[in-house]
Amino acid sequence: MTIPELIDVHAAWLPPEAFRAIGSRRVLVHADGPLAETVRDEVVHACGLYGGSVPHPVSDQVGDQQVDLVLALSSMAALPAVAEEVRGEALREFGPDACGAEGFVLACRDGVTVVLADEPAGLLYGLFQVVRLGESAFGSARPVERHRPATRRRMIDHWDNIDVHPVMGQVERGYAGGSIFWQNGALRGDLTRVRAYGRLLAACGVNAVAVNNVNVHAAEARLLTDRLGDVVAIADALRPYGIRVHLSVNFASPIALGGLPTADPLDESVREWWARTTERVYATIPDFGGYLVKADSEGQPGPFAYGRSHADGANMLADAAAPFGGVVHWRAFVYNHRQDWRDRSTDRARAAFDHFAPLDGRFRDNAILQVKHGPMDFQVREPLSPVIAALPATRLAVEFQVTQEYTGQQRHVCYLAPMWSETLGFRPWGDGGRTVADVVADGPAAGGAGDLVAVSNVGDDPFWTGHPLAQANLYAFGRLAWAPRTDPVAILDEWIDLTFVPSATGDPERLRRTLHEMMDESWTTYERYTAPLGVGFMVRPGHHYGPDVDGYEYTPWGTYHFADRDGVGVDRTRASGTGFTGQYPPPWSDVYESLTECPDELLLFFHHVPYGHVLHDGSTVVQHIYDTHFEGAERVAETRLRWEKLAGDGLVAPELHARVKERLDEQLRSAEEWRDQVNAYFFRKSGVPDAHGRRIH
Amino acid sequence: MTIPELIDVHAAWLPPEAFRAIGSRRVLVHADGPLAETVRDEVVHACGLYGGSVPHPVSDQVGDQQVDLVLALSSMAALPAVAEEVRGEALREFGPDACGAEGFVLACRDGVTVVLADEPAGLLYGLFQVVRLGESAFGSARPVERHRPATRRRMIDHWDNIDVHPVMGQVERGYAGGSIFWQNGALRGDLTRVRAYGRLLAACGVNAVAVNNVNVHAAEARLLTDRLGDVVAIADALRPYGIRVHLSVNFASPIALGGLPTADPLDESVREWWARTTERVYATIPDFGGYLVKADSEGQPGPFAYGRSHADGANMLADAAAPFGGVVHWRAFVYNHRQDWRDRSTDRARAAFDHFAPLDGRFRDNAILQVKHGPMDFQVREPLSPVIAALPATRLAVEFQVTQEYTGQQRHVCYLAPMWSETLGFRPWGDGGRTVADVVADGPAAGGAGDLVAVSNVGDDPFWTGHPLAQANLYAFGRLAWAPRTDPVAILDEWIDLTFVPSATGDPERLRRTLHEMMDESWTTYERYTAPLGVGFMVRPGHHYGPDVDGYEYTPWGTYHFADRDGVGVDRTRASGTGFTGQYPPPWSDVYESLTECPDELLLFFHHVPYGHVLHDGSTVVQHIYDTHFEGAERVAETRLRWEKLAGDGLVAPELHARVKERLDEQLRSAEEWRDQVNAYFFRKSGVPDAHGRRIH
Repeated sequence: MTIPELIDVHAAWLPPEAFRAIGSRRVLVHADGPLAETVRDEVVHACGLYGGSVPHPVSDQVGDQQVDLVLALSSMAALPAVAEEVRGEALREFGPDACGAEGFVLACRDGVTVVLADEPAGLLYGLFQVVRLGESAFGSARPVERHRPATRRRMIDHWDNIDVHPVMGQVERGYAGGSIFWQNGALRGDLTRVRAYGRLLAACGVNAVAVNNVNVHAAEARLLTDRLGDVVAIADALRPYGIRVHLSVNFASPIALGGLPTADPLDESVREWWARTTERVYATIPDFGGYLVKADSEGQPGPFAYGRSHADGANMLADAAAPFGGVVHWRAFVYNHRQDWRDRSTDRARAAFDHFAPLDGRFRDNAILQVKHGPMDFQVREPLSPVIAALPATRLAVEFQVTQEYTGQQRHVCYLAPMWSETLGFRPWGDGGRTVADVVADGPAAGGAGDLVAVSNVGDDPFWTGHPLAQANLYAFGRLAWAPRTDPVAILDEWIDLTFVPSATGDPERLRRTLHEMMDESWTTYERYTAPLGVGFMVRPGHHYGPDVDGYEYTPWGTYHFADRDGVGVDRTRASGTGFTGQYPPPWSDVYESLTECPDELLLFFHHVPYGHVLHDGSTVVQHIYDTHFEGAERVAETRLRWEKLAGDGLVAPELHARVKERLDEQLRSAEEWRDQVNAYFFRKSGVPDAHGRRIH
Repeated sequence: MTIPELIDVHAAWLPPEAFRAIGSRRVLVHADGPLAETVRDEVVHACGLYGGSVPHPVSDQVGDQQVDLVLALSSMAALPAVAEEVRGEALREFGPDACGAEGFVLACRDGVTVVLADEPAGLLYGLFQVVRLGESAFGSARPVERHRPATRRRMIDHWDNIDVHPVMGQVERGYAGGSIFWQNGALRGDLTRVRAYGRLLAACGVNAVAVNNVNVHAAEARLLTDRLGDVVAIADALRPYGIRVHLSVNFASPIALGGLPTADPLDESVREWWARTTERVYATIPDFGGYLVKADSEGQPGPFAYGRSHADGANMLADAAAPFGGVVHWRAFVYNHRQDWRDRSTDRARAAFDHFAPLDGRFRDNAILQVKHGPMDFQVREPLSPVIAALPATRLAVEFQVTQEYTGQQRHVCYLAPMWSETLGFRPWGDGGRTVADVVADGPAAGGAGDLVAVSNVGDDPFWTGHPLAQANLYAFGRLAWAPRTDPVAILDEWIDLTFVPSATGDPERLRRTLHEMMDESWTTYERYTAPLGVGFMVRPGHHYGPDVDGYEYTPWGTYHFADRDGVGVDRTRASGTGFTGQYPPPWSDVYESLTECPDELLLFFHHVPYGHVLHDGSTVVQHIYDTHFEGAERVAETRLRWEKLAGDGLVAPELHARVKERLDEQLRSAEEWRDQVNAYFFRKSGVPDAHGRRIH
């Protein structure tokens, strides 16, 4: 295999220079199998660029070769002496099966860096760990470390359409151009970019990709049958980097594609159709990952039409995939999107729990319930979805949104890893209890570990993600899915050191400092100038970009803030509201219920309060709105200035600098628009003047 | 020519039965020329259906034939004796040239009904007048009446695209299906429906049609050049009914189609291009009407790009069309659609006057300034556009919107003739001064009479207009354009008597009564449940259907209401607001300026007032909002009940009844939504409870 190289496409976090440390050394790759071939090819390629060498591992001489880096399967018969030592130590420290299917151990002793893995996939991830470490992987001694992913599946869901949807475009909620898979209604002829994409994903730890939109339209439904060839080709392109493909399927496929009169999951002919269809998929793609389903949600078909439960629906597909080791990701994003805004008893936040909690224990082992991290829909601030703590006997996948639908649409800098990190570290049962990451990683006794999933932010844009700095979100998602406890600041360092530093001239420390200043708190900056105190939405309906405080207030979408002249917020308490707080276990069921204990940043998510309500910092709600909105826009102005100062110093390429600058101009305009609309709205409603006399329109 | 007959398309106001009175009689058609042929063909067709006869007008026997109806050109050498008498009397009463190009005289004496015209077009309109009169045209004596259109051009503007626009659809702001002209990007193969459409238009007095959208996209721009064949075919289909075609053109055509580097109206090569192009159009379509232009408006190109005035732009095209008798309709709908909502000094209502009033006297005689009737954009209630009183030396066309963009989109019953009638009868210079109809009809001394124009509501829907009762708007527009002083109630009677009565079984009086109850006040009913007191907009951005009180409040479109917790409305006074009131001549400049004299229905258009402001009827603004909204929705419920009672009695066809019923269901749902959103919005803002304790959400 040749290493995919692209012209006129940004190298993201794998510029050739990132391989300099490896490529300038003597590297022994001692392993068999397809993924081991990838490792070898990567090393050979790097050594070709930077003067290193890759001696052939002749069995009886392995022990004697003078090398700087050993990448080997621990099962290989003969290893260099230093690697033998590392193997022995790992065995003593971690026991047999130390690495599992994807892990590796890493050590450096006697000037030799050693990566050992039980399986070739582990070697691949070990290689990219050495890439990340760069020069620091070499030379000085490093004790034996074990690296294993916390989650079984680290998955990217593409919301790509084959045909351009008249409203949603080719990539639904995509802000980086067209699909990297399809163009003009057909699979792209040249999939080099898909291979390069797989390489980027492997380098941050991702091992699964769902290739098409969960809203499965007519053309995309046929990927399951007569357009399966498209999936085969994508799978072939991604397989060398250890990535399995999954497919979003339409629940009504037996009708639409199979000509059956029903899609009832308990109907024998329907089950038979799915079994046969799935068998054909696996006959063609033996390592096919499985299905992803959005059912009974926002107009998609589902089991409710037949009076069946979502467990019935998911299990039918799980049964079809089980003989082949496949899984079904079944989305819990089910709610009434035709709600009457006048009906205050219905609460969209409750819906997923109400639908799915009663089904715990009724899902097959290979059916995975995929839950958005918050109860609503990827707002800049939401509490944890209570579903995540409500199904102990069900395998879960937690879904994040890397694509910035509600967080600036890749026109705004918004580094999301701090939000995801906060979610993953959240303890649904309070201090001392397990974290969300634990829930996902441990899984139920019956089923094994769960998954982390994210919606892709990638398109055919030359910078992959529209906003070049949005690449960090994709990178960070993969790294958090592998190791959820990693500090987002450290992840950003990794990303900077891979993406910018190897090719930068000038002072890399200045670059690092600037990017941290721009990005570390960009999430809370975005939060400051948009919807306040956890209330959510307030975006333009449809495209979801820019402010419209009442945009969703009188719609059927279940997303309200109930602002009037006296106050704002949604009463979700048990005492007087929708009772949503009762879906949490203690202590959160009480913390959120309590007006005094509820965290400020979620106040309006759980309570309707007067504008004069005093927050924990002593400010009133309305003054907080004014203050944060002025401050948020100011911070964006500062961010923009920081970036401008980076120009022309060789720290970032001119095209990239120009692209980010253009986006920052728009971010500032938009942040000021948010500031002025939100402040004007609440001033007009409340009549309360700003304590500092600033201009409100 | 055969009379166009359609299968599966509603006959609108020309069902075969409407011709029974003529078709069952002996009719002499005594005239020459193409339109006279149409008259003859119509009569022959009617007589074929109902047993009448059409004796050939053998010259030396004309006087002796026993006929019931004479349709003759007054210039014919020999007329029946009774027609000679009528001719003589008309000459005495009205002088020579009594009828002009399109008028006719009508009389009945000695049991013979006589229609005389100077030109064949007059005969055609006379024929349709006899159709309208039906049996009452015959038998009893009728003194000589003269009928002449008040306006030179009675024109329908189609906003049809050739290609389906991704957002605006095939017919921009069309609510009745696709275009009757184009389908799948090409001219329809069978233009029978276009001929039938021309016949309907002629029957209500329309004599000009602009065939394509004023937003001229790429494909449509080429109608001027290599797709001129489409226009030829449409012109051929409409010509037999006396209708000329006009074309919307793109101001930048010299660049886009001609390959020139500029579209500067003073550039010689540009003028030359338009001259040559126009010459080619007239060589192909000698009776081509002329051009329609939306320039420098909502993104369309225009003369501003070259530092030229709109007079320069219009005159360039007028000069190109003048040698062939063509005209240019130049739209005055020019405003800044990228306004900053924070800037309260800019007022979209001012824009047309500010742009065009200084240009009075600078337009060519064949350049017609086309002005929307209100200063904003076809809201349910607007004051008169002050432009109409501001250019005494310029020919004007007043533009109405028959398509119900802001008045229920042909899902709501909204008979618009009362609004248009009010506009046409409005006296910009106060009591005793001329009316708008006078301004249009008289025109400036230099140019002659002006035009009335309306945006079409027709599509390929089986009922032509989506909502069958919306046909009345198209009919009424034509009739008002011909005779602006006609009572809208009488026009509705005409329409009912043509459309329904001839084929109805049962009690036609009950049908008439019900339709009047449903339609006479449907405009003010719609006003009641939508945006109050002239404030306008409050619709969902983009599609403009349904309520969204703040939908346009923070947008660049210049359409604001400025509601806050204390009050609502736009201060357009000279004293403290934008000064728009100063664009009117007295007395209106003072009436609108005065908070006490300003008519209630326009209060919020001109003034920002507290919610407690007392209206002329003693109610407060906020109570008025509540009352009218409850009442409006109640009226719709009553309308719906009235229609339901018409079912099954043979008064209307079942398909038509079902279609109207389905629309009324939606109208009621929508009216209740408007009621609840608007009331909730103002209750939340004002905190004032409803005086009658009704439910506000």
